[in-house]
Amino acid sequence: MAKKQKTFRPKARVPKGLRDRRADDLRGEREVLARVQRLCELYGFEPLETSAFEYADALGKFLPDQDRPNEGVFSFQDDDKQWLSLRYDLTAPLARFVAENYDGLAKPFRRYAAGPVWRNEKPGPGRFREFMQIDADTVGTPLMAADAEMIMLAADCMEAIGLERGDYLIRYNNRKVLNGVLETIGVAGGDEDVQRLTILRAIDKLDRLGVDGVRYLLGKGRKDESGDFTEGAKLDDAQIKGVIAFIEAGGETSEKTFAALHDLVGESAVGLEGIAELEEINALLSAAGYGDDRARLDPSLVRGLGYYTGPVYEAELSFEVTNDAGQVVQFGSIGGGGRYDGLVQRFKGVEVPATGFSVGVSRLVTALEAKGGLTDTAPQAPVVVMTLDKDRLADSQAMVQELRDAGVRAEMFLGGAGMKAQIKYADKRGSPIAVIEGDDERAKGEVTLKDLVLGAKLSQQIVDNKEWREDQPAQISIPRKQLVAEVIKMLARHEPDLGSRHP
Amino acid sequence: MAKKQKTFRPKARVPKGLRDRRADDLRGEREVLARVQRLCELYGFEPLETSAFEYADALGKFLPDQDRPNEGVFSFQDDDKQWLSLRYDLTAPLARFVAENYDGLAKPFRRYAAGPVWRNEKPGPGRFREFMQIDADTVGTPLMAADAEMIMLAADCMEAIGLERGDYLIRYNNRKVLNGVLETIGVAGGDEDVQRLTILRAIDKLDRLGVDGVRYLLGKGRKDESGDFTEGAKLDDAQIKGVIAFIEAGGETSEKTFAALHDLVGESAVGLEGIAELEEINALLSAAGYGDDRARLDPSLVRGLGYYTGPVYEAELSFEVTNDAGQVVQFGSIGGGGRYDGLVQRFKGVEVPATGFSVGVSRLVTALEAKGGLTDTAPQAPVVVMTLDKDRLADSQAMVQELRDAGVRAEMFLGGAGMKAQIKYADKRGSPIAVIEGDDERAKGEVTLKDLVLGAKLSQQIVDNKEWREDQPAQISIPRKQLVAEVIKMLARHEPDLGSRHP
Repeated sequence: MAKKQKTFRPKARVPKGLRDRRADDLRGEREVLARVQRLCELYGFEPLETSAFEYADALGKFLPDQDRPNEGVFSFQDDDKQWLSLRYDLTAPLARFVAENYDGLAKPFRRYAAGPVWRNEKPGPGRFREFMQIDADTVGTPLMAADAEMIMLAADCMEAIGLERGDYLIRYNNRKVLNGVLETIGVAGGDEDVQRLTILRAIDKLDRLGVDGVRYLLGKGRKDESGDFTEGAKLDDAQIKGVIAFIEAGGETSEKTFAALHDLVGESAVGLEGIAELEEINALLSAAGYGDDRARLDPSLVRGLGYYTGPVYEAELSFEVTNDAGQVVQFGSIGGGGRYDGLVQRFKGVEVPATGFSVGVSRLVTALEAKGGLTDTAPQAPVVVMTLDKDRLADSQAMVQELRDAGVRAEMFLGGAGMKAQIKYADKRGSPIAVIEGDDERAKGEVTLKDLVLGAKLSQQIVDNKEWREDQPAQISIPRKQLVAEVIKMLARHEPDLGSRHP
Repeated sequence: MAKKQKTFRPKARVPKGLRDRRADDLRGEREVLARVQRLCELYGFEPLETSAFEYADALGKFLPDQDRPNEGVFSFQDDDKQWLSLRYDLTAPLARFVAENYDGLAKPFRRYAAGPVWRNEKPGPGRFREFMQIDADTVGTPLMAADAEMIMLAADCMEAIGLERGDYLIRYNNRKVLNGVLETIGVAGGDEDVQRLTILRAIDKLDRLGVDGVRYLLGKGRKDESGDFTEGAKLDDAQIKGVIAFIEAGGETSEKTFAALHDLVGESAVGLEGIAELEEINALLSAAGYGDDRARLDPSLVRGLGYYTGPVYEAELSFEVTNDAGQVVQFGSIGGGGRYDGLVQRFKGVEVPATGFSVGVSRLVTALEAKGGLTDTAPQAPVVVMTLDKDRLADSQAMVQELRDAGVRAEMFLGGAGMKAQIKYADKRGSPIAVIEGDDERAKGEVTLKDLVLGAKLSQQIVDNKEWREDQPAQISIPRKQLVAEVIKMLARHEPDLGSRHP
């Protein structure tokens, strides 16, 4: 025998921060997607899906963590040396699409999209580098009615997928009000100002770090538990006090909150503009019956993305869940959005005002699972036709085909194992029925149906195995010709149990 | 005014070889996906979706064009310096998944998956760098019954999506027979032998280049129309004759083809094994009623991918279409697959035999469009509620909400334009009805419904605009309270037309 060369054997491992998704997960996702898509259609949005990657310059740098160049995205170079980046959200590619196809579009342009996005971030528990988003956007309108509609859509979305009123809250705010506050306390600079971004990111961490943590990040900086130091925004004490007053300005009623905001922005034109916009949104929401129990003004909300220019909103689930570390925590944010009047302008030079909302689909599925709100959409697990005689596979195949033709999910066992292993396989698949045609049965023109649902129940209830085996009520012999009819009868008997038999 | 810094303005363009997909396209894709997924479920396959990218070593190098390292895939480096590649198909990631999760899986493992794949190839007309595939695979079985089932699935798939018998043909063959022929004519080397791959790729171009083109590629090489030279497999004349005899061995009946193959492989063990496997598949297909009109042995089929080890199969549409260059051509291949017994072994060291089938979804949608087989799944285009008075947006919003609550797709016009532009917008959206509430109407407690479907018809038929304008049968005033009922009535009137009103 020739000496064998040592073969390179790669380790089979899913890349860091990514994951494979199996049946239950995917079926839940499909159900959630279908419901949200139906709602978007009802609202008059049309589907549009852009490419998975974009020229890097088209995406821009708007991610919350952008201390280093290229931070946050996966990039590679094309053969013509142009840099391409996997999309990190569905909004920046939409802006590129609108700019590229502007003249042909009905405006305002209303679209929804679902698809994976990728973030080159440090993965953690429940924090993946690839995740599914579904977005709705209205491009080409400065009207606050468009933002109000997004907030209504977000609320309706929560109920469309099965959450109850009280389980969720859509919070909203306006970047312009924060800008007004900053103007009042003497923080200079435009939207892209580094200090302003640092302030935004500090406030965005309120949920996680609390007010004291934010205070450090507004000031000199903060050392976290791992010892890593995050540079602060270098505001002085009076300025910090002003920002904290802003994020704590939420009152018991909208009226009180608006009054507090008026005090904070003083004479700032941009601040007053922001408040006027919020008042308009508030009025439209109230008129449409979306009260404080569904959507509420919250000055502590700023959102992390750099491209928002006005109203921002976030959908938050208020019920508690146990996290991966075993702690009981509020579920928290599952999506959000805001107005991005400058994104299309980046390409076109003229302002094309736009607003949009984005939901993290996996988070939504997890939330629904926690609330038990996902209906079981799994089909009946397949009927398994045993293959005991390798020379008679065509007979098994014929049975499978008859079942499939009648709409019964079925397969024949395609492995090389014996009877016992085949039953084990059928059990592992969650199969309701095993069909057996051995020599004895064939001679009599019969097949045996093994009722695996009943079998599983009996084996739980009856301790005396001998008695059970002798009785064998979970197994019947029937004429081969009645296969389909008898299988359908047996399936019907277990209709309510079949969902839970799914693996 | 401060002097403005010159702003960088990126050009809005979709990356080379990629594309955006709009409503019609996506709705067609969703319908095709849903039908194929339903069929896969009926066959007992379970959904599984793997990550969009993989460690480069896990994907391996199996693409047809692999003259240069990394050719064919998009790759980038993670921060731990490991190379990642976007998946180029759904099979190589499945092999990684199975190797990683082997012990916990019911075996044979039957899964289906749908998702985009990416190829770093030269784009061309109808040839994109990102496209959607849907795959079904059975992993962990050496039985030819599994391959036969894939061929049946492929055939059933064509009919499930609406193609008729006679429109498609599933061709199949076996790599082992080719290996037998090569052994007989004295071509040495294992599966990964470069010369053997060159031969595979030459044969795979038969459809495009014809027998003479293949002959050159089997010999010294071939210069194409652009002057590019492709190196050949360097076979001598007798060897070339042998290979050509193989790919032309398809006879009028399966019996004749099998006889010809027997002659060609002679005493070659691997060749005889391949023929025996094909005979088994052929027998199972015949027994199951999949005759030559649906699935047929074709020795000229080899498939381009390097990882196939035994049976290969391809779904081909036999009807003619007009291509982008205006030529009438056979539609050709829309998917295929084969047995890849070595893919999981690459990771695990032990052989895990597997077989699978893959369809290009976009190609399928295009085919169905060409055949008129896609039903119109577009929902009714939205009813548009005009917004003539910016201070009364809440009134428009209320009407939209009433309509949506009744399940009627509706939106209010969110742009800043006047009446005429709003009607134009509604027309561009394909809207069936515009709802108008001006001051006059409001004073009377009425709204006006403008029937845009009827309006479009009338404007086609009636030349005398004056007469039409005076008559205005396409516009009715109704009490505000009857909005929903009247809209539903008007929509029902146009039920059969609404699909075609979709933009």
